[in-house]
Amino acid sequence: MSYEIKGLNEECGVFGVWGTSEASHLTYFGLHSLQHRGQEGAGIVTSDGKKLQQFRGRGLLAEVFSNKDDLENLRGDAAIGHVRYGTSGNNTLANVQPFLFHFHDGDVALAHNGNLTNAASLKRKLEDEGAIFQSTSDTEILIHLIRQKKDMDFVEALKKSLNQIHGGFAFVILRKDSLIAALDPNGFRPLSIGRLAGGEYVVASETCAFDMIGAQFVRDVQPGELITIDKNGMHIDHYTQETQLSICSMEYIYFARPDSIIHGVTVHNARKKMGRLLARQSPVEADMVIGVPNSSLSAASGFAEESGLPYEMGLIKSQYIARTFIQPTQELRERGVKMKLSAVRGVVEGKRVAIVDDSIVRGTTSKQLVHLLKEAGAKEVHMRIASPPLRFPCFYGIDISTRSELMAANYTVDKMRKIMDADSLSFLNIHNLIKAINLPDAKGAPNGGLCVAYFDGKYPTPLYDYEAGYLKSLKQQRTREVIGK
Amino acid sequence: MSYEIKGLNEECGVFGVWGTSEASHLTYFGLHSLQHRGQEGAGIVTSDGKKLQQFRGRGLLAEVFSNKDDLENLRGDAAIGHVRYGTSGNNTLANVQPFLFHFHDGDVALAHNGNLTNAASLKRKLEDEGAIFQSTSDTEILIHLIRQKKDMDFVEALKKSLNQIHGGFAFVILRKDSLIAALDPNGFRPLSIGRLAGGEYVVASETCAFDMIGAQFVRDVQPGELITIDKNGMHIDHYTQETQLSICSMEYIYFARPDSIIHGVTVHNARKKMGRLLARQSPVEADMVIGVPNSSLSAASGFAEESGLPYEMGLIKSQYIARTFIQPTQELRERGVKMKLSAVRGVVEGKRVAIVDDSIVRGTTSKQLVHLLKEAGAKEVHMRIASPPLRFPCFYGIDISTRSELMAANYTVDKMRKIMDADSLSFLNIHNLIKAINLPDAKGAPNGGLCVAYFDGKYPTPLYDYEAGYLKSLKQQRTREVIGK
Amino acid sequence: MSYEIKGLNEECGVFGVWGTSEASHLTYFGLHSLQHRGQEGAGIVTSDGKKLQQFRGRGLLAEVFSNKDDLENLRGDAAIGHVRYGTSGNNTLANVQPFLFHFHDGDVALAHNGNLTNAASLKRKLEDEGAIFQSTSDTEILIHLIRQKKDMDFVEALKKSLNQIHGGFAFVILRKDSLIAALDPNGFRPLSIGRLAGGEYVVASETCAFDMIGAQFVRDVQPGELITIDKNGMHIDHYTQETQLSICSMEYIYFARPDSIIHGVTVHNARKKMGRLLARQSPVEADMVIGVPNSSLSAASGFAEESGLPYEMGLIKSQYIARTFIQPTQELRERGVKMKLSAVRGVVEGKRVAIVDDSIVRGTTSKQLVHLLKEAGAKEVHMRIASPPLRFPCFYGIDISTRSELMAANYTVDKMRKIMDADSLSFLNIHNLIKAINLPDAKGAPNGGLCVAYFDGKYPTPLYDYEAGYLKSLKQQRTREVIGK
Amino acid sequence: MSYEIKGLNEECGVFGVWGTSEASHLTYFGLHSLQHRGQEGAGIVTSDGKKLQQFRGRGLLAEVFSNKDDLENLRGDAAIGHVRYGTSGNNTLANVQPFLFHFHDGDVALAHNGNLTNAASLKRKLEDEGAIFQSTSDTEILIHLIRQKKDMDFVEALKKSLNQIHGGFAFVILRKDSLIAALDPNGFRPLSIGRLAGGEYVVASETCAFDMIGAQFVRDVQPGELITIDKNGMHIDHYTQETQLSICSMEYIYFARPDSIIHGVTVHNARKKMGRLLARQSPVEADMVIGVPNSSLSAASGFAEESGLPYEMGLIKSQYIARTFIQPTQELRERGVKMKLSAVRGVVEGKRVAIVDDSIVRGTTSKQLVHLLKEAGAKEVHMRIASPPLRFPCFYGIDISTRSELMAANYTVDKMRKIMDADSLSFLNIHNLIKAINLPDAKGAPNGGLCVAYFDGKYPTPLYDYEAGYLKSLKQQRTREVIGK
Repeated sequence: MSYEIKGLNEECGVFGVWGTSEASHLTYFGLHSLQHRGQEGAGIVTSDGKKLQQFRGRGLLAEVFSNKDDLENLRGDAAIGHVRYGTSGNNTLANVQPFLFHFHDGDVALAHNGNLTNAASLKRKLEDEGAIFQSTSDTEILIHLIRQKKDMDFVEALKKSLNQIHGGFAFVILRKDSLIAALDPNGFRPLSIGRLAGGEYVVASETCAFDMIGAQFVRDVQPGELITIDKNGMHIDHYTQETQLSICSMEYIYFARPDSIIHGVTVHNARKKMGRLLARQSPVEADMVIGVPNSSLSAASGFAEESGLPYEMGLIKSQYIARTFIQPTQELRERGVKMKLSAVRGVVEGKRVAIVDDSIVRGTTSKQLVHLLKEAGAKEVHMRIASPPLRFPCFYGIDISTRSELMAANYTVDKMRKIMDADSLSFLNIHNLIKAINLPDAKGAPNGGLCVAYFDGKYPTPLYDYEAGYLKSLKQQRTREVIGK
Repeated sequence: MSYEIKGLNEECGVFGVWGTSEASHLTYFGLHSLQHRGQEGAGIVTSDGKKLQQFRGRGLLAEVFSNKDDLENLRGDAAIGHVRYGTSGNNTLANVQPFLFHFHDGDVALAHNGNLTNAASLKRKLEDEGAIFQSTSDTEILIHLIRQKKDMDFVEALKKSLNQIHGGFAFVILRKDSLIAALDPNGFRPLSIGRLAGGEYVVASETCAFDMIGAQFVRDVQPGELITIDKNGMHIDHYTQETQLSICSMEYIYFARPDSIIHGVTVHNARKKMGRLLARQSPVEADMVIGVPNSSLSAASGFAEESGLPYEMGLIKSQYIARTFIQPTQELRERGVKMKLSAVRGVVEGKRVAIVDDSIVRGTTSKQLVHLLKEAGAKEVHMRIASPPLRFPCFYGIDISTRSELMAANYTVDKMRKIMDADSLSFLNIHNLIKAINLPDAKGAPNGGLCVAYFDGKYPTPLYDYEAGYLKSLKQQRTREVIGK
Repeated sequence: MSYEIKGLNEECGVFGVWGTSEASHLTYFGLHSLQHRGQEGAGIVTSDGKKLQQFRGRGLLAEVFSNKDDLENLRGDAAIGHVRYGTSGNNTLANVQPFLFHFHDGDVALAHNGNLTNAASLKRKLEDEGAIFQSTSDTEILIHLIRQKKDMDFVEALKKSLNQIHGGFAFVILRKDSLIAALDPNGFRPLSIGRLAGGEYVVASETCAFDMIGAQFVRDVQPGELITIDKNGMHIDHYTQETQLSICSMEYIYFARPDSIIHGVTVHNARKKMGRLLARQSPVEADMVIGVPNSSLSAASGFAEESGLPYEMGLIKSQYIARTFIQPTQELRERGVKMKLSAVRGVVEGKRVAIVDDSIVRGTTSKQLVHLLKEAGAKEVHMRIASPPLRFPCFYGIDISTRSELMAANYTVDKMRKIMDADSLSFLNIHNLIKAINLPDAKGAPNGGLCVAYFDGKYPTPLYDYEAGYLKSLKQQRTREVIGK
Repeated sequence: MSYEIKGLNEECGVFGVWGTSEASHLTYFGLHSLQHRGQEGAGIVTSDGKKLQQFRGRGLLAEVFSNKDDLENLRGDAAIGHVRYGTSGNNTLANVQPFLFHFHDGDVALAHNGNLTNAASLKRKLEDEGAIFQSTSDTEILIHLIRQKKDMDFVEALKKSLNQIHGGFAFVILRKDSLIAALDPNGFRPLSIGRLAGGEYVVASETCAFDMIGAQFVRDVQPGELITIDKNGMHIDHYTQETQLSICSMEYIYFARPDSIIHGVTVHNARKKMGRLLARQSPVEADMVIGVPNSSLSAASGFAEESGLPYEMGLIKSQYIARTFIQPTQELRERGVKMKLSAVRGVVEGKRVAIVDDSIVRGTTSKQLVHLLKEAGAKEVHMRIASPPLRFPCFYGIDISTRSELMAANYTVDKMRKIMDADSLSFLNIHNLIKAINLPDAKGAPNGGLCVAYFDGKYPTPLYDYEAGYLKSLKQQRTREVIGK
């Protein structure tokens, strides 16, 4: 059985804070440090203890909140926020989170990072029962499930509803009297608790948000947990006991900020270790090591140190890439106009270069990098990838291209090397990846507590709607494409 | 004698291209790679062989040229462009270059990088003779000088006028039938000639612009040269023979892009060498070396390699700093909210850290860096600066703060160390700076062909209007402050 | 019994077209002619026979659709559009119509002009049954009612739902295969059918939209009708037979454009007749008649002709009033700075002036007008109002201030005259208002087929949620205020 | 001899105020009432007694000054302002007034309404002497003429310079210690002095600006006058005694606001009289009179009263025409989509209509009007024009199309009638025009003190650069086209 899926999943960042009059400002700065997790939209909802207020918009945080009043009008002592990555098709304001719902018995706001594997069937069922959806986001499903349970109190209904959804999810929920965080039973997505100097609790997708606002790390949210923060402090509960840690390894490889600490591991250190182990696993005869800015610099410096080769700046990334930049025409591209990356001729000319990248998706960038370096005079270009070949899609919250587009799903490593015209090409193996990350609190768990399904196709959960043919029969090809065999 | 000057000087980027129908697009991409030289304004003037057209605006290039039509309406086979750094006081559209002048005998456009040392007295004299200035820029003076010489042809008048102005300047000038580049007699500012695949000439402040557009480097413009590019190709002439190379050493230390090659020296390589020599000159007992992103990363890796210490990512710079970002309030700042730089706790905690920075101006950033690192758990913080102490202002085109604000002009190195709470502090000495850059084509020239006046106060030219008391007597305190003694 | 209500009701404009490839453009121009019915938001939904697409935004039509692509991207042969009047409290994008709902069994879009009198209780009931509302608009209630009826086909469910809602409503509904128009049982709001040269049907709140796009008037939609337009042409049906025409008289007095024809009566002609009957009812000794621009000019010219007095331009309204205009400070106001209306000194100086206005709400404008004219030298100012005193709120779709703010609800006519310092003041009586409008197709209906409840307090229907005390008990004071006695 | 000229001339509005801390705000509101004189740009310069500050931009006043700070940052007790009409070719920011020049001996700002007839030759001469122009505006010439006169004091140099320029001009000039107003020797353009309640002087193109800000009219500026306002009050001087009033009759016919009083005549009253005299001169058998909104409504009501016919609203002009409005395609236009004007079917259907318009330029609008009315069912359409046929261009400050485009310059009245398909067509004759305006203070002057050259081709002054062939020889066809014969 194999899968192909395209462009639906989301990688986002969530944030929450409780108990300080600067709630909206702290959320803004917290989201700023999570901006790398989503640049398509941003929003904040605050609670003043009576009602909830929302401000959201498309684009970068700084574009959405363009003047001070936007923040200052968001009054209250509690807030949640969201930065959104969205594929073009569903990039409408209606999909920008946090979602805010006004009910006669109290407002509720939700923000979500992840992807549900039974969203399509749940939505279909709810709609048949009269539910009306405003967004195309999975997130809205949860609130419908909760509101269906008319006779339960909110937390009871929430727990029951969390057991109805499957996949990867990290939710932060705001009500007038509490802030709630919940993580899926596999802990696919990172979510941490921190504390400000005054003792106020904060929640964030990554710990870099705590450093940004001067908060101290308290603990990671664990799989299956439901954490409530209110005037009585923090209360840790579970909505399920059937859990198994399976945190996304791509967070360590590519997504997370190098200064974040996830389940006890500093991302930069993990990446440097990936570089070191890669150097041992696939050494290279070269004059220098260079990294692809910015995500591969940690791995590259590890590779350089382990190899004893000099670490050089052989590629420059423009600091001024803007959304509105006018793109070069095809003709200009052929004339050699580059927008993002330039090779440094004075560094690589006449040299044998080992270039370290974090991963290969479609392979087009890799091909360009080799071309750039050779054009700038590099004698040899050896490509070293600090993660295993990406061969399978993710269904738990990160947007990996369809399988048909994944280079490693279609070619052998040697064929890939030839296509990209590199002098050699190696990938870090799964064993070394797990060893490099080396989660301290997950000894004994399969794959050291990591999800590596995009590398080996072994998904740690059933796939529900993504099982062969199901989504197709729902005729939802507009948004999701599944090809079974 | 001592000087104080504030905020007037400019550091900008210029670009020119001749002979291709994609002139405006190539200028746009060329300017994109020069964006680090000025973010306050940008403009392009094109020539279609009959008349000149202008588009310019305040802000980043991508903000100024916000849609394709802006570029496509700039028709013609030749263009010059400019990115501008401007101090707040004179940041009006009228000061955004290139300047375009329409005359009944032909349009002229000018773009300029540098600062004239006799601008004030020339302007006063011209105004007394009836001249009317529209901008507060030095650049406008040149065109008035040219137009005064009614009986000479343009190039003759230009040569004579270039002999009337003093200071640092790199001009590109566009007329309907030619593109002209001119450099001051000391070559204070960088300016290079390149060539596109089709043989068309380009001119740029830095060679990184050539890489961006697929052009090959041809030669650096030499001090005192006047280079004309027209349908007959490139013609090299001199407006003066009294020249002496004195290229700005701060271009190598801080301003230029690491991939640019200036007078034969790749900037990254020079910086790495500065780091290496600094490690030899001022070694440190530490567990790791970290650089201040992004300008000090080359020097830091050189320092690490020479020291045999691991090179780590101990500081993270946000990639999403926007002009419009809402700043933290004083209260939030005190709570620890940071906007630009974060220390990586998982890297530095419990460690002895050597931090390499390129230079110290006011010293406030250095102080914050030490504080950030110690707060994140660093046991010791050793500050290493890969250039000599900045003690004097520049009058040739870069904006260094008034002398009273330069930390090194007011304190000993030891006192600086105490102020910033570092465990040790060292600066690269001038001798090692010159050795690290090691200009190949300037053997025998004073200071190896470099200007190091901001370090030793020995200016390679007379200072004209900046001589003690003169500017003051002109009562131009609004824009320039000079205190003589 | 008395009522007070504030700021909730809406006065909007709707438009629909079926069967032409220029559907979005025709809707744009149709809405342009309905812009006077709502300036707070605008939107268009089109159908290409398979799916529906939406574009909407806050502000004027020209602000929302700011470039051609916005229209051209709305593909398809059918469209509905909406211009929205909204009070500040609920002026969010979520409330801008048409609303578009995506269901697995087909998209539905709705646009609405009117106000439901049982919205609050219906919404409460639906929410208790699990429904989730995204807007604060009455309009969303209809779609929830329809979706509840799972086993019925769409039109059957719609008919049943229309019988569950009460108040004033004109709906246009778009589905992939049909355009539907429905009017409330009293026909409180205007809604007309027209036909383009090619035979394609259009629907609009006012016939002026037909003139704008070159369409011919076909018929008014009658109370209780449900009209379906699809590939088979137009089909007229009823969802109820219990109807009684009671069209809003304020449409004739103030709201509608003078060139619109509603139920056979040209609005300008009705207004002119109001002016004529007012002149007969309350003649005045004066030197001239002036109207308050622009809505009172028809009535004023009728008054002038009947009186035999010259009709002069004694007041000028600025044509350049913009939403973004900087308002005069209190101090400047006291110095006499005026923004919107100026008196023409050269016309009124030394003269006895009869000024005709269409209606008086709070009375503040009337007071200013008298002051303006006297300041400009008018010897006497006689105020003539071409409608009866507004004493009661409207619950069927127009936003009249709370009763406590209505001048005529609180003062006698003579007291009003004194407050505004006029030399005389008269209102058209209800009898003459009905006579002036003189609906041809409503002989025998109460009040000649008109709703005059804001004048006499006799509402033609029960008021449901607006009955004394009910809304209050729902604790919805945030949006609706009802005070019973 | 005949002339053709295109697109160069300007019709603008100027304003000035002296001696109040609300100078910038009063100028803003004054300019607001002059907005009809120019919608392409607006600007204000203020003086705080030491230096002058400028804010200007393209577009409507409300677009240029989009937030309060723009006004509040313009500090000082004196200000001048300008609203600009500009033809597309020269609609750049550099041409937006007031112009501000900084000199070491004091700042000067200028704003101008009018057109110079010897601008081209003066500019050529000045440029040959070394002057550099930044704009393509005539206005800049004056400051160059002043600065040439190095040994004279400012007012002396200004007087001499005013004698060097020819044509129509109304200047307001601001210096740190005075506000100056100057009018050309024929008084072609209107310019008036007013006074605020506190005694502070204001200057404006039209008196409607005084009403807007609560100022009282004091006197019209007379031809050849130079009026200085400073701390000592108002001082009236002359720069020439060779004057002859020849105020532009088109100000009364079309340009000025109906509430303005120019040389003692209220514009509305003059227009109404034009309508009355036209009715006597060219009576019509019709059922009603309608005016073309908004400029012809005064004349139409005069025509109606004199004829004894009812005055009806047979045409509606949209109040929501925006600069950014998406225009109908050619196909939609053919389908009958109209943007600006609609005929009122319910008024004109089956009726004989007399339509009064103020003037005919190209005749295209007139043709459309007749078509609109007949399409709406009018039985007959009789066109009455409340001014004589426009046959010649203006060189003194209003932009009339080239002669080749003026309908009346190319066709007889009867041919015009046929082209526009009217049932009859008449123009007010020159005699009646002069009689209708009837300037009280110009008895004995030719044409009653009015310029009627666009009607009879008899220009009251020599035409200098516009004499046959001259401009052509200057090869300035880009901006001005003159064809001699």
